[in-house]
Amino acid sequence: MKKIAILGFGIVGGGIPTVLEKNADPIRRAVGEPVGISYILDLRDFPDSPYADRVVHELAPILADPETEAVCEAMGGVEPAFTFVTACLEAGKSVVSSNKELVAEKGDVLLKTAAEHGVSFLFEASVGGGIPLIRPFSTSLAGERISGIAGIVNGTTNYILTAMKREGRPFSEVLAEAQSLGYAERNPSADVDGLDAMRKILILAALTTGNLADRSDVTVEGIRNVAKEDIEAADALGGSLKLIARALIGADGSLSLGVCPMIVPEDNPLSAVSGVYNAVSLTSPVAGDILYYGRGAGRLPTAAAMVSDVTAILSGAAKAEKAPVFTKRAPGFCRPFNGEKGSCYVRAEGSSAELSELLASLADSVEPVPGTAGFVVGGASAGEIEKALPDARIIRILR
Amino acid sequence: MKKIAILGFGIVGGGIPTVLEKNADPIRRAVGEPVGISYILDLRDFPDSPYADRVVHELAPILADPETEAVCEAMGGVEPAFTFVTACLEAGKSVVSSNKELVAEKGDVLLKTAAEHGVSFLFEASVGGGIPLIRPFSTSLAGERISGIAGIVNGTTNYILTAMKREGRPFSEVLAEAQSLGYAERNPSADVDGLDAMRKILILAALTTGNLADRSDVTVEGIRNVAKEDIEAADALGGSLKLIARALIGADGSLSLGVCPMIVPEDNPLSAVSGVYNAVSLTSPVAGDILYYGRGAGRLPTAAAMVSDVTAILSGAAKAEKAPVFTKRAPGFCRPFNGEKGSCYVRAEGSSAELSELLASLADSVEPVPGTAGFVVGGASAGEIEKALPDARIIRILR
Repeated sequence: MKKIAILGFGIVGGGIPTVLEKNADPIRRAVGEPVGISYILDLRDFPDSPYADRVVHELAPILADPETEAVCEAMGGVEPAFTFVTACLEAGKSVVSSNKELVAEKGDVLLKTAAEHGVSFLFEASVGGGIPLIRPFSTSLAGERISGIAGIVNGTTNYILTAMKREGRPFSEVLAEAQSLGYAERNPSADVDGLDAMRKILILAALTTGNLADRSDVTVEGIRNVAKEDIEAADALGGSLKLIARALIGADGSLSLGVCPMIVPEDNPLSAVSGVYNAVSLTSPVAGDILYYGRGAGRLPTAAAMVSDVTAILSGAAKAEKAPVFTKRAPGFCRPFNGEKGSCYVRAEGSSAELSELLASLADSVEPVPGTAGFVVGGASAGEIEKALPDARIIRILR
Repeated sequence: MKKIAILGFGIVGGGIPTVLEKNADPIRRAVGEPVGISYILDLRDFPDSPYADRVVHELAPILADPETEAVCEAMGGVEPAFTFVTACLEAGKSVVSSNKELVAEKGDVLLKTAAEHGVSFLFEASVGGGIPLIRPFSTSLAGERISGIAGIVNGTTNYILTAMKREGRPFSEVLAEAQSLGYAERNPSADVDGLDAMRKILILAALTTGNLADRSDVTVEGIRNVAKEDIEAADALGGSLKLIARALIGADGSLSLGVCPMIVPEDNPLSAVSGVYNAVSLTSPVAGDILYYGRGAGRLPTAAAMVSDVTAILSGAAKAEKAPVFTKRAPGFCRPFNGEKGSCYVRAEGSSAELSELLASLADSVEPVPGTAGFVVGGASAGEIEKALPDARIIRILR
């Protein structure tokens, strides 16, 4: 039997034993022998758990156990996760992480430490929960040029926006309901303010270009200010309002990164991604658009993604694959997202004729949107419009 | 420079040089050096092509060239492709194929030959064109139990059904238009009669279970008989009519395989897959539904998938991956698809009351569908309904 340890026995970490049981047969086929749990590190005790006897409160026994080949980190946060993961890698143990904060901040260092010690650092579960998304970047897509990424990577905000659209209810009401149902946390900031999506687009862009940008380079706008009128404007344009994590990628690996509510036209499959589902769409000038879709969060899907990485490690597949390599870039590496030209929906107080005239001076095209007080402008940057119209509501349109 | 040869310089084979040029930078990064073309095997000459000097009319120079490490087979058909691919593998050259007929008929033999000679036989391009779909089955999903596959895997039929729905036109008219636009072949049988989709579901089921079933085990119904009323019935149920390639998979690897028009409910993301796009959805009891979406056909997307396999071979990644292994199963291995219980839409001539009563004797539930002359029945097998009502129109509903 092969042995793994778990760091953090919360929602996701606590799902790992279940996945190991439910998928025991295919795991044994892939690995060549059964996979069991040696230790579970948590501050708490779990006297009622069938794994109570394996709970420890410090890392030392895991580091010292030669039978523990891989470690699943599901603690969240940068510290002490970074210190613990580093210690495991240095002790010759491969590590699997679901921790997007850790990967977005320290992924470059941890990949380097893993390579130096001949082990793997994998993080399939850090983006897109149960969707096998990370590995294709290093394998199937390795010889492909990717010019853009657009993702719905946060289930909580997608649930809230879907409910606002379907039921015509305001943000605050739907958020309260989502909190009571457990779809949103009591402190919802990481989700609704776009920070979770920001970490994920940093990771996806790093996998695509090898450049891990600084978080200060990502233009981030969450969904707190999404009004009924914004959702109606998306409807009027035949699309859906979604919180989109976006990367625009130059042929030289240059980046422009943003997270913001965008109007997704109906013919883009991201427009149909509802509720807690996630999807990531990649634009390849050669292969066309590719989209991955699935359960982006949740105990078992996320734990299943971690176990998929464990399987790759214990079967030897991970060692054979080319590991991704990131270089951490100083702030200022990315082109400003607000300066990218594109299409926007713009609404502002005051005379419609004056607004139209002003917008025409900034854009290639200006078209009124019937049934709303706004315009679609083409070939303009959100930053320029904002400078000229500081009080306007500007919503980018995903093209 | 690494060298590859191309067998068959038609639509897809002819796209390979373009992909090698357009993706030259990422390919060089992944492989470590540039990739060029040594020989192109075709019966024709291409005097105006920049590759005219590399065209040969027999396999011998390719087999004899020690510099040709990998061969791209884009000839189509079982023979002479099988003979040629076998000869290449036996000569120690890895082979990449876009030929679903070959893989569905002879994939087991070719994988075995490749393994015996220490080379790879890869076929990412055989299903889903540019969508990276095949590799995840052997990697990310290796430790996952998959209980079902539902795919829109034929772009021609999806284009026709989409146009029939949007424009309310009959099958024959849309087919003629698709032929004139080049979206359907002059002999459209492989597409519209479901044979292409049949080959692809045989391949996907083999990757999932290791069992390559006989084509006679797949229940196949194409889209020739799809009537306006069928599309209206799907509309009335809030869904879309799609040609679905379906596999139901037991925990023991047992299979039930079918290709048929199905009503896909709106909340299933397959319902929104329009035009020439393809998508494959996998049901995992643990990870939830996962969907892959993209351009399922076309010169460059399919050639890009072949080049992705070439990149995996020349970078050494393919050798390190666990290659799939199939066992060819004799006819009768699969459970009959018509015997699987599920939901169907049923319409028949005659008294509605009598029809309802008869259906109630075969099913768990019978509900009239407002605005149509039919019923939705639950918990019944299409085979049993057909036996009792040989003239009825029966359309399965994807759940």
